[in-house]
Amino acid sequence: MSDNSFNHKLVKKLIHAEKTEALKGLLKELDSVEIANSLLQLKLKHQLLVLENLSKEVASEVLAHLQNSSPILEGIVSQMNSGRLGEIIEEMDGDDAADMVSILEESKAEEVLETLPTKDREEITNLMQYHEESAGGIMNPVVVSVGKDQTVKEAVNGIRDLIEKEELETFYAVYVVDEYQHLIGMVTVPILLLAEQENLIKNLMNPNVVAVDVDMDQEAVARIAQEYDLVVIPVIDKYLKLIGRITIDDLMDVLHEEYHEDIAHIAGTGGEEVLETSVLRTSRDRLPWLILGLGGGFLAALAMSEYESMLTDLPQVMYFMPLIAALGGNIAIQSSSIVVRGLGTGEIRTGDLLQRLWKELRVGMLNGPVCALILFLMVWTITTDVKLGMITGIALIAVVMLAASVGSTIPILLKRINIDPAIATGPFITTANDLLGILIYLSVTFSILGTSLI
Amino acid sequence: MSDNSFNHKLVKKLIHAEKTEALKGLLKELDSVEIANSLLQLKLKHQLLVLENLSKEVASEVLAHLQNSSPILEGIVSQMNSGRLGEIIEEMDGDDAADMVSILEESKAEEVLETLPTKDREEITNLMQYHEESAGGIMNPVVVSVGKDQTVKEAVNGIRDLIEKEELETFYAVYVVDEYQHLIGMVTVPILLLAEQENLIKNLMNPNVVAVDVDMDQEAVARIAQEYDLVVIPVIDKYLKLIGRITIDDLMDVLHEEYHEDIAHIAGTGGEEVLETSVLRTSRDRLPWLILGLGGGFLAALAMSEYESMLTDLPQVMYFMPLIAALGGNIAIQSSSIVVRGLGTGEIRTGDLLQRLWKELRVGMLNGPVCALILFLMVWTITTDVKLGMITGIALIAVVMLAASVGSTIPILLKRINIDPAIATGPFITTANDLLGILIYLSVTFSILGTSLI
Repeated sequence: MSDNSFNHKLVKKLIHAEKTEALKGLLKELDSVEIANSLLQLKLKHQLLVLENLSKEVASEVLAHLQNSSPILEGIVSQMNSGRLGEIIEEMDGDDAADMVSILEESKAEEVLETLPTKDREEITNLMQYHEESAGGIMNPVVVSVGKDQTVKEAVNGIRDLIEKEELETFYAVYVVDEYQHLIGMVTVPILLLAEQENLIKNLMNPNVVAVDVDMDQEAVARIAQEYDLVVIPVIDKYLKLIGRITIDDLMDVLHEEYHEDIAHIAGTGGEEVLETSVLRTSRDRLPWLILGLGGGFLAALAMSEYESMLTDLPQVMYFMPLIAALGGNIAIQSSSIVVRGLGTGEIRTGDLLQRLWKELRVGMLNGPVCALILFLMVWTITTDVKLGMITGIALIAVVMLAASVGSTIPILLKRINIDPAIATGPFITTANDLLGILIYLSVTFSILGTSLI
Repeated sequence: MSDNSFNHKLVKKLIHAEKTEALKGLLKELDSVEIANSLLQLKLKHQLLVLENLSKEVASEVLAHLQNSSPILEGIVSQMNSGRLGEIIEEMDGDDAADMVSILEESKAEEVLETLPTKDREEITNLMQYHEESAGGIMNPVVVSVGKDQTVKEAVNGIRDLIEKEELETFYAVYVVDEYQHLIGMVTVPILLLAEQENLIKNLMNPNVVAVDVDMDQEAVARIAQEYDLVVIPVIDKYLKLIGRITIDDLMDVLHEEYHEDIAHIAGTGGEEVLETSVLRTSRDRLPWLILGLGGGFLAALAMSEYESMLTDLPQVMYFMPLIAALGGNIAIQSSSIVVRGLGTGEIRTGDLLQRLWKELRVGMLNGPVCALILFLMVWTITTDVKLGMITGIALIAVVMLAASVGSTIPILLKRINIDPAIATGPFITTANDLLGILIYLSVTFSILGTSLI
């Protein structure tokens, strides 16, 4: 990849030296992925300069690659004039074109749609009716289909016409439909290629096709593709008619997006992008989670102030407070992250609540006493107080069991009421368990010590 | 998916009722993905029973699907007899077959290899020489290639022979090689399908093929496939000769695996699987991270015991200790997770250390004072001590800046010395920052208060 970074630098240098012709020449030698990567490193006005020097075909590929970096893409398209944007969008596949129009401001979107041929305009507005995270939102409506009673030769001729009409670049499967467009089977392209010209499609087709409904969530579509090792998946409407197809590259983007979202939730960084986000936006994305942490800490401080006299008598109790809080947080994040991942991949269902809880409690029954013993030895070392060591050990076991219960059940409960369970992993659950840990520790410790202190 | 769960239950019921013939019949009606999913829910002896009742073709597909659940797969294959296992492995694609043999114990692997035809045995042992996480480790050595001077007709005939000889099921691209097997181009299957029979391959081929080296890391291969929207990627050796291909389904599995690894690192759960892991193994995977947390807490307790007399005089200082520690941990995980993700996707390079640090420091300069102001108000509310509020606020800003620096730089430094940076997100970095936070808080607070207390 050092090669790429060399190209990036060259692009930058030519822009700063204002060598437009040289820049144009260099851009012709790069592929659209390399150009898209270079754009990520440039200022907006230089991004626009690069795009001006690309053919509309290459520009459409470059913008399609940028769809994973939405803040940058939004900045670029808002500054391009509608005519040029229309030309570029006309070159795109239906699904990419619809995505591109949907990020424009309403008035600009209308202007751009005006510039398009009627057929493209209708295709795009038709696609935009589907939820952007559904199968319909990521499908391509141009799909290669044949009839079961056609010969291979007839089918190939039909495909040739379609390809020309729709400017389709490539396809991975040919779907078989009846006269009403109902999906009834599939033939892979290699099978067609190797078949005798006069053979009938119905003799070649596989009638067991895994298809998805147009309203299915895109993540569920990606999971099905992954389970069945599919490269392309047909999309049907509620009458079981074939209306589109989703290719694996779009599904990989879906998984990529979901992964980043999960990690962002766990780390409490919001939807933050890696490179493109400004300092101000980064700060704004992260601050709520920090304030949540401060709020938890405030409640912990209030709880401690309740025990002020006891803490003054026995400040050693305090020493182990951060340890107890951190341990509660760690255990909660361990058990919740497993559940969130399992819910995401479908390996855990919302009905598995008790089973999951029971497993986490058993893990807690093993790890709790081990940690308690270690804590006992630590307390003994620092304070030489055996009784305090035993009490903190007991409190710690209680904290471990509670954190395991909270961590494993909250994500499942959230999922049941249709809230993204990933929210429950990360700052939310660690803060809750920091606080719970401190409350349990204080109440256990002082309810046992209380009598002796009075 | 409720449908699936119904089938799972049916499988279980028939096993417990010992209705072997009915079970055999049911299994014929399920596809290999459904059977693989059902196996995940069964005990080992019942898993073996199901596999016995499958044809070797279906059994090979089922075992290939289980490769993402290695503990289960290892249990199953260790109990199957070598003859049957050989039959099943013979049915698999080269890459899956090699993976399967590589999880067997050495003596068993040799037994199984003995049962295979020479050609399969050589293919497998040849593949096993590559690192399992390299392109060679996941490639399929059977690849469809043609010569540039062949006509379409000759090429198709050649492919037909190859398919028959290698029992290849499907393919997505036809590679063009010279007489020494050097990769010189590619033709997609649809282009071959739609071309005139007498046209020459060299007129149809695209000479710009993105290929990967056999030693490239599998994650890097997946990134290239994702960037270039590739469904299949050719693998070359150091002489640029075509030796295999990697299909997108295997790359999706790679990304899936890497994602789970990242989350496991962040959450401190080790390589833990979602469903299959025993309580004992789960406990063992998680315990080291908990002990790390305890160690950090121990050091914090030691530090506090140094300040014992001051803490007895002013126990209020303690109240905000958990808050400071948690905030340091949260900020460190926010900044490190972004860097780890960026390093993973290649958006951040190891040369970006200072740039990254500077960005995090600027975010800290915004969020630090906001949090400090909130803390000041909280301290004031609880203790009515303005001076303490100001001091804790200053300490908090110092903690924020330090956590941001540590969180953003440590992953990059680890990557430079070739340690997986994901390790630095999660328990390791939160523990380090809990502790650092407490040390800074105590030293700042008491160095300012110290004079007035004496």
